[in-house]
Amino acid sequence: MNIFITNDDGIHARGIRQLIAIAREFGDVYVVAPDGPQSGKSHAITLSVPMRAKPLPVEEPGLVEYACSGTPVDCVKLGLRELFKDKPMDLLLSGINHGSNAATNVLYSGTMGAAIEGIMEGVPAIGFSMATYDQQVCFDPAVDSVRTIIRQMIAHGRVGDCWNVNIPVGEVKGIKACVQAHATWDERILRREDPHGRPYYWLEGDFENDDPRTDTDSYYLDHGYVAVVPVTVDMTDRAALSRMGGWF
Amino acid sequence: MNIFITNDDGIHARGIRQLIAIAREFGDVYVVAPDGPQSGKSHAITLSVPMRAKPLPVEEPGLVEYACSGTPVDCVKLGLRELFKDKPMDLLLSGINHGSNAATNVLYSGTMGAAIEGIMEGVPAIGFSMATYDQQVCFDPAVDSVRTIIRQMIAHGRVGDCWNVNIPVGEVKGIKACVQAHATWDERILRREDPHGRPYYWLEGDFENDDPRTDTDSYYLDHGYVAVVPVTVDMTDRAALSRMGGWF
Repeated sequence: MNIFITNDDGIHARGIRQLIAIAREFGDVYVVAPDGPQSGKSHAITLSVPMRAKPLPVEEPGLVEYACSGTPVDCVKLGLRELFKDKPMDLLLSGINHGSNAATNVLYSGTMGAAIEGIMEGVPAIGFSMATYDQQVCFDPAVDSVRTIIRQMIAHGRVGDCWNVNIPVGEVKGIKACVQAHATWDERILRREDPHGRPYYWLEGDFENDDPRTDTDSYYLDHGYVAVVPVTVDMTDRAALSRMGGWF
Repeated sequence: MNIFITNDDGIHARGIRQLIAIAREFGDVYVVAPDGPQSGKSHAITLSVPMRAKPLPVEEPGLVEYACSGTPVDCVKLGLRELFKDKPMDLLLSGINHGSNAATNVLYSGTMGAAIEGIMEGVPAIGFSMATYDQQVCFDPAVDSVRTIIRQMIAHGRVGDCWNVNIPVGEVKGIKACVQAHATWDERILRREDPHGRPYYWLEGDFENDDPRTDTDSYYLDHGYVAVVPVTVDMTDRAALSRMGGWF
């Protein structure tokens, strides 16, 4: 089978190298990933400047890699529609991200932006994230879970299926299919002044899971399980819609 | 009341000037909008470089404006958490975008990224988009609908309510609350070579509404109605989840 891989930490990040190694057990692997960090890029696409894509010198059979100047979603579009347009993809994998994309982080995540683009392209997709920003984290305890999840998507996945997978650090207790938690960032803005006295700003914040439910991705992740949330592109709030009768 | 306004076409676009004019009928207006075009930026946030925000010389009472170097979502975070942190906002408005954000465009849209950020911040929010890229489009036929929709959100909106509003060009037949269409882009990649013979790429494509339902935003928009879709941040695909029993 043909497997497309991208990420948002950039093509040289340890997480994508680990994911490529696992994916090669399942088929031929085609990589288009950002040439540098693209975290927090969500579903952004590049419209105002053109993109570059540079083939990397890879000498292993069944593996082709390009480094792309665009966002993770750009990488998917460029890969599926141009660079590998003669290779119908059976599966799209994104990650392994350094940092959790559980709960509402799915909205900000470039890793998940790329995976969700799989729905648009009719390719079953999985985004993998590890719940730590530690660039040197050991992926070994996660490898079996990643394999199992890929195997189940291959066995059961339909066109348009997309999973948001978050992996705890250390020993894994099991894998749980579950719902997205409603958690938020307690955001602060760091204000500094440049040498000319002009202000500039950095975003910073702490993630707060204030969702009391016990069937959510954040809950399972906090309790040592790999959390798998199936994701849809239909953002309609049907509960809100049912309240809107007669307003217009 | 205090109304926060942003957009993704930039602070000098005609659409946001029109929206500011309408919003001032309802209360004091606080603007933080991009200092240049930020279309297609989705829910992206800026992490790798700091942001700037420059106050504009506005001499009207009840109106304050900043031009920000970040994305639309950055503008919301910076505005609500720093620049106007002493002004609790009652309503967040984004737009009026030049170009439709109906159907799955909600995922790519910076206009809607900013509005959806309202849900994160507990502020009722509306994103407005006009179904044409014509920068010189006449907004007059849309003004009454925009007013009505703002009035209904003020009357009924709850914390976390967010509406994706798309407006047809020309005469408006009415306003419909409805669901998001499942439409896609038929994407092409334009490949060119620079003077040194190296390839570069542009995204281009046509929007295709292949959703046969007649209660969707794309359907109503195509038939001359303003379409209002309530949007949620919960992307869980519950139908897919119900199929996943026993897989892990």
